[in-house]
Amino acid sequence: MKAIVTVMLKTGVLDPQGKAIGHALHGLGFPQVGEVRVGKVIELELAETDPEAAKTAGAEMARKLLANTVIESFKVEIAA
Amino acid sequence: MKAIVTVMLKTGVLDPQGKAIGHALHGLGFPQVGEVRVGKVIELELAETDPEAAKTAGAEMARKLLANTVIESFKVEIAA
Repeated sequence: MKAIVTVMLKTGVLDPQGKAIGHALHGLGFPQVGEVRVGKVIELELAETDPEAAKTAGAEMARKLLANTVIESFKVEIAA
Repeated sequence: MKAIVTVMLKTGVLDPQGKAIGHALHGLGFPQVGEVRVGKVIELELAETDPEAAKTAGAEMARKLLANTVIESFKVEIAA
């Protein structure tokens, strides 16, 4: 069973990497780009067979290692 | 309109960051973790109002800047 953890900076936390990407896209001829935010996706192959248990485990891993919950929020999705 | 571009290393491309996370999770007491792959999410705020146009623009940006298509694959999703 696969758990997909997405970690994004919380709203209001400055995202310099996103800003840089936004500027670069403007320079490449994409004037329609507004705010850009960058985050991480972590795909975890888990031994769990129960989706609920996999989700709980993924959230615990996010809290303990994958996300810095002071400045980052995360969500856990389960893929087939 | 928001486009979400997810960039992952292609299957078969070694992912040392994922390996490191896997080892760290084992050490933290998550023996159920198998393969771990790490990627990027880029959330783009776009001026487009047509979902199809936004998707096309997002894919073009991914090809030109956000993904290294030699070793990375990407997908574009449109959020409301």
